[in-house]
Amino acid sequence: MFLVTFAVRIKKQTMAQKPSIPKGTRDFSPVEMARRNYIFDTVKEIFQRYGFQPIETPAMENLSTLMGKYGEEGDKLLFKILNSGDFISKVDEEELLERNSIRLTNKISEKGLRYDLTVPFARFVVQHRNDISFPFKRYQIQPVWRADRPQKGRYREFYQCDVDIVGSNSLLNELELVQIINDVFNQLRINTVVKINNRKILAGIAETIGESDRIIDITVAIDKLDKIGLEKVNLELLEKGVSQQAVDKLQPILNLSGNNVEKLDQIEAVIGASTAGKKGVEEMRTLFDYLSGFELDTEVELDLTLARGLNYYTGAIFEVKAKDVQIGSICGGGRYDDLTGIFGMPDVSGVGISFGADRIYDVMTQLELFPEETVASTKVLFVNFGEKEEAYCLPILAKLRAGKVNAEIYPEPAKMKKQLTWADRKQVAFVVMVGEEEIAQGKVTLKNMKTGDQQLVTPEELIKILSE
Amino acid sequence: MFLVTFAVRIKKQTMAQKPSIPKGTRDFSPVEMARRNYIFDTVKEIFQRYGFQPIETPAMENLSTLMGKYGEEGDKLLFKILNSGDFISKVDEEELLERNSIRLTNKISEKGLRYDLTVPFARFVVQHRNDISFPFKRYQIQPVWRADRPQKGRYREFYQCDVDIVGSNSLLNELELVQIINDVFNQLRINTVVKINNRKILAGIAETIGESDRIIDITVAIDKLDKIGLEKVNLELLEKGVSQQAVDKLQPILNLSGNNVEKLDQIEAVIGASTAGKKGVEEMRTLFDYLSGFELDTEVELDLTLARGLNYYTGAIFEVKAKDVQIGSICGGGRYDDLTGIFGMPDVSGVGISFGADRIYDVMTQLELFPEETVASTKVLFVNFGEKEEAYCLPILAKLRAGKVNAEIYPEPAKMKKQLTWADRKQVAFVVMVGEEEIAQGKVTLKNMKTGDQQLVTPEELIKILSE
Repeated sequence: MFLVTFAVRIKKQTMAQKPSIPKGTRDFSPVEMARRNYIFDTVKEIFQRYGFQPIETPAMENLSTLMGKYGEEGDKLLFKILNSGDFISKVDEEELLERNSIRLTNKISEKGLRYDLTVPFARFVVQHRNDISFPFKRYQIQPVWRADRPQKGRYREFYQCDVDIVGSNSLLNELELVQIINDVFNQLRINTVVKINNRKILAGIAETIGESDRIIDITVAIDKLDKIGLEKVNLELLEKGVSQQAVDKLQPILNLSGNNVEKLDQIEAVIGASTAGKKGVEEMRTLFDYLSGFELDTEVELDLTLARGLNYYTGAIFEVKAKDVQIGSICGGGRYDDLTGIFGMPDVSGVGISFGADRIYDVMTQLELFPEETVASTKVLFVNFGEKEEAYCLPILAKLRAGKVNAEIYPEPAKMKKQLTWADRKQVAFVVMVGEEEIAQGKVTLKNMKTGDQQLVTPEELIKILSE
Repeated sequence: MFLVTFAVRIKKQTMAQKPSIPKGTRDFSPVEMARRNYIFDTVKEIFQRYGFQPIETPAMENLSTLMGKYGEEGDKLLFKILNSGDFISKVDEEELLERNSIRLTNKISEKGLRYDLTVPFARFVVQHRNDISFPFKRYQIQPVWRADRPQKGRYREFYQCDVDIVGSNSLLNELELVQIINDVFNQLRINTVVKINNRKILAGIAETIGESDRIIDITVAIDKLDKIGLEKVNLELLEKGVSQQAVDKLQPILNLSGNNVEKLDQIEAVIGASTAGKKGVEEMRTLFDYLSGFELDTEVELDLTLARGLNYYTGAIFEVKAKDVQIGSICGGGRYDDLTGIFGMPDVSGVGISFGADRIYDVMTQLELFPEETVASTKVLFVNFGEKEEAYCLPILAKLRAGKVNAEIYPEPAKMKKQLTWADRKQVAFVVMVGEEEIAQGKVTLKNMKTGDQQLVTPEELIKILSE
């Protein structure tokens, strides 16, 4: 009989396997889901409040879309998908025996998993350009995958929450992104500081000190100022081939003081002769002027040491830190003047930020910021005492559900204690008990699981109480 | 300067690339997202009403978890992920030159993309058995991936909405799943028929006609009755090696008539001597008896031709058809007595169903069942007339948002017509216009985009009107 053969097949496999998941990935339990959804729902609500609309893109993109967009290191960290079917037959012998994994990948893999949401979004905009009304304001909340070495707080599958506007140069967009940051973290009750810089200012600095072609080395080094200190940054710059003279010129710029406007004045005094530099200072003045019109909960700070690794940024750049927890940035982004150019649609400026849901989750867990009632559960459990009692309860249960009350019955007549423990672990608020006496009286006993109070009520009263 | 070098890099890549996505995958626009979320939200709401809680599992599972669970064909349809780093160096020359793609896959790939939600759920249950209170009622809404040949209505990435209960043998669970089906499709306004069968009845049939070891051939053939007709099913059975005598014995079973209870009587008369068969008939009697207590909108029909391909089902099986559209099943599932046994945790019975979000979407599109207001958009757009007007509008806009009104301002002073067209395409309900006169009077002009009505109101009145 087939039930038997099936069991035999299972037995064989049992020996061979212990269940686990790939390192750097996670399962999410109902409690974790409820907390994560609390973050996602908050973020979505605020995004929509500012006029952004959701899109989604496939988990898999063509490797031609992804490769070369995240630097050499990024290419290595892409998860690649093996071509289906007989992928190896068309690879010639020489290539096989060469055993060059990178070159062989091109022959046996055409697709990769999404590495971030920005490049797929740029691809989306270009592909659907004729259906989009620009300026296009979209948000996107989806997982991304990176073959990074897993460690505490760093996963191979994690969610990004991106919000971008493309097709508008206005700095009003930068303002609104800062307002969004403020509103999200205000609602999540996380104290933050938003650090802002501008790539044009960095370009102006490089130009002023005569090292324009080393701007990437310089920004990467500056980015480490917080971590390794001024001395080591200077050393690194010299090692990279930046002249001593240029490094000397750089010093005052790395030691600015005062408030944001005062800092901008000092910067302008040094780099004002550079066109890019002057433009960058102007942009920042406009943004800080906009911001001065609002009372924000978050601090906003001009920070020249902020560079952000990604090369596609060309204007404002943002990074958000949680004040009460030692952790990397929990949100970041910036303006990119030509990201869609990669896909053949030049001159479309965009600006956006990305919220790191996993780090926000960690911050909120550490600071105990999740509201108690986030766990989605039923409001009431009917204890199951047996066939007759079950038959009495089922129509009442159906009426509760028809009235949109989340309600359930224990599926079998297990021991009372077991059923109550189950209800308790699931954080069910009320329990209904029906025995012979209740049936005889046409009533039910309702127990409040928190207070322990019990009352005998009619089914109609029950529905009224639980619908409140 | 780095802005220039960046532009040069982009230009090179432009030539080589045209943006597209892998075949069988899709982008979702804001309108499609709103409609899909309408389906997901409905399904979630009903799942929660019945006491199910959400979980999520990683997109990637170890291949050892996935392989062998979906048949030989399923193994081929798994998307496999290439190992990171230098994956090829450890493969020996002989294996390389053998060019056996299947065998080579084992050497260069350890992970695969989720093929369904049932096997990852079974893995989840076994892995977290010590943290779970059984019976465990979970739902899971996530994409799955299959390297199937893409065609109309069949995608390589699609969403499943699964709801399962494990650790309970009670047929009350089968009842509740039918109620969930009823509630979901009632709320989505899709007319459906639920077809029900029981694998034990099929096993009883095979036993009775003396072909127990061919139960899988028989169920696969019976499954095609609807599509290819009785004659061809008989032929296929004979070809598979089922005896003429057995095929003859099978005929009355394939030509049942009457209502569900009458059919069960006829079946029992034929297969009552088989233990499995008798048990199956009893289970169905209990379920139909449960169901008779409720007035459902959906039809429920015992259908012996329903077999469902997956081998892990051992009891009730379900399939839901939309009555008004020619399309495959939009929901299906069944009871599995030992799915977790595959992972070393035997004797845990489960039952569950899966809603096919993509087919449901297609049905609703064809029947025009989506409510008009599903598109998430802002309630009001402030037209941008320039710097001075913008400065007047921004604080009012902020107050609206603080009052939880979804509101936005066009990010730059474009032509009025362009801004209104943009608002119209985005289905914004109201537009606020502020010129010199409004500023002088301390008011704003509010325009209803549907009726065209305009009124001059104070900012306070505006907030009151739009907050309603």
